[in-house]
Amino acid sequence: MNTPPAGLSAEQERRETALVDRVLSSFDACEDPRLKEVMRALVRHLHGFLREVRLTEEEWAAAIAFLTAAGHITTPKRQEFILLSDVLGASMQIITINNQAVGAATEATVFGPFFVEDSPEAPIGGDIAFGAAGEPCRVEGTVTDTAGRPVPGARIEVWEADEHGRYDVQYDDGRTAARAHLFTDGDGRYAFWGITPTPYPIPHDGPVGALLAATGRSPMRASHLHFMVTAAGCRRLVTHIFVRGDELLGEDSVFGVKESLVKEFVRRPAGTPTPDGRPVDGTWSTARFDIVLAPAET
Amino acid sequence: MNTPPAGLSAEQERRETALVDRVLSSFDACEDPRLKEVMRALVRHLHGFLREVRLTEEEWAAAIAFLTAAGHITTPKRQEFILLSDVLGASMQIITINNQAVGAATEATVFGPFFVEDSPEAPIGGDIAFGAAGEPCRVEGTVTDTAGRPVPGARIEVWEADEHGRYDVQYDDGRTAARAHLFTDGDGRYAFWGITPTPYPIPHDGPVGALLAATGRSPMRASHLHFMVTAAGCRRLVTHIFVRGDELLGEDSVFGVKESLVKEFVRRPAGTPTPDGRPVDGTWSTARFDIVLAPAET
Repeated sequence: MNTPPAGLSAEQERRETALVDRVLSSFDACEDPRLKEVMRALVRHLHGFLREVRLTEEEWAAAIAFLTAAGHITTPKRQEFILLSDVLGASMQIITINNQAVGAATEATVFGPFFVEDSPEAPIGGDIAFGAAGEPCRVEGTVTDTAGRPVPGARIEVWEADEHGRYDVQYDDGRTAARAHLFTDGDGRYAFWGITPTPYPIPHDGPVGALLAATGRSPMRASHLHFMVTAAGCRRLVTHIFVRGDELLGEDSVFGVKESLVKEFVRRPAGTPTPDGRPVDGTWSTARFDIVLAPAET
Repeated sequence: MNTPPAGLSAEQERRETALVDRVLSSFDACEDPRLKEVMRALVRHLHGFLREVRLTEEEWAAAIAFLTAAGHITTPKRQEFILLSDVLGASMQIITINNQAVGAATEATVFGPFFVEDSPEAPIGGDIAFGAAGEPCRVEGTVTDTAGRPVPGARIEVWEADEHGRYDVQYDDGRTAARAHLFTDGDGRYAFWGITPTPYPIPHDGPVGALLAATGRSPMRASHLHFMVTAAGCRRLVTHIFVRGDELLGEDSVFGVKESLVKEFVRRPAGTPTPDGRPVDGTWSTARFDIVLAPAET
């Protein structure tokens, strides 16, 4: 597991590996087998990293300063350690690990910090924007299981940022907008009016933003619309859909994009009649998202 | 570098490794080659860890909470992230990596947080305790280079905790005690009176202490006396000596113990004449530490 660095003397190699063994042994008395497994693996990979890059004492001091700054900017409303996990792809990898591929089941992606319990209920075909600024967008689709059977009564939570790149909870006026839940009908169908997703940056005025800048990376997230779908007998699905053609698909700052989640958002010229007769001023768009739920406990 | 977990479906394996590749590629535009190397290695080892242990979302949330608590307890006087690095052996590994084995050169160990610039100067054979509580201990030895030549005029900083396990800077009265610097004579010799080292715990009232408790580990450090030795043409040496027979040698909480640094501290009964005729009440001890400095720039 430890990466043997090239060109080390036998004595130096012995000292470095002996230290790893000593740290591993320090967990021998740990009574929680899972904690012991995790700590031992953490130590092996951490020391493997340090030994491979030959981390200098100055770099170590910079890492300590980075973590300290991340700790100090973190408040109940600002979580820099989650941002760090996000930009290293760790959050996305944990989602991937904990949502194993099952047949054609829809892929999961990151949950994000802006989900809120007790969103308003919308009827099928209803408007979940509740006045949020943005181009109207009609989303529709089905929820089925991996055997292709419709899932009636599935609960679909949707939430998204407005055209200014902000979620309702990021305003100080207590508004609830661009979020709702609805249920599939007897044929597993759903539809709602929301707003066409637009890109926005993750908070980048702290140490994680500085890290992104230093490494030539963008803090922007590709345009997306969040879904959480729950139904009896099915694995809970937390995912997004993304807008095909978005320039940021290849550099989403939290690695949330999966090709299977990129959808066509068809732009309709102003004046095009809507499928349900809803009057709309200006352009609008449509997107289709057919959701396949994995069986529970997989 | 990624640990392939057993029993994954080909599609699941593809998703996990594709994500790692995507995160690695995100650093392609990084203009600092060393930062790029470090970040890419960090990502490979981090994802290797997550994939190997199949970290759950609950465990991830616990890790975020741990880092948040560590950040919030950290102040200019309390550095929980350094403690974390210490108890994972990372600090000691970085010391080891940055002080490559060179011939018979004395091994380095952790610096610790209690070094203070501008310590008082003591003459050879002088008393560096300056009233600190503890059993008197006479330490003597030589400083030579790896060719065995004496190093005259080497500056030796020494510092240690008192018999209550506290360094002078841990008292609120501004005292300076149990720390000094002295210089080797023309034959590379030195000697001083300090106090026999005793064990003490690292700060363990925070998240790192809770981690140690949960994993069945002790927060205690083995008894030790700190040295920093500098001389022209030689690599700076930061090290400790430890007390042979100390029950904590095998479980030093920061992994600072190296067998080559464990020394005989010979206990002398009360009334035994001292080598320099110094009057001592009660028991006292002696220890010998011959120091070998590596050449500079190795």
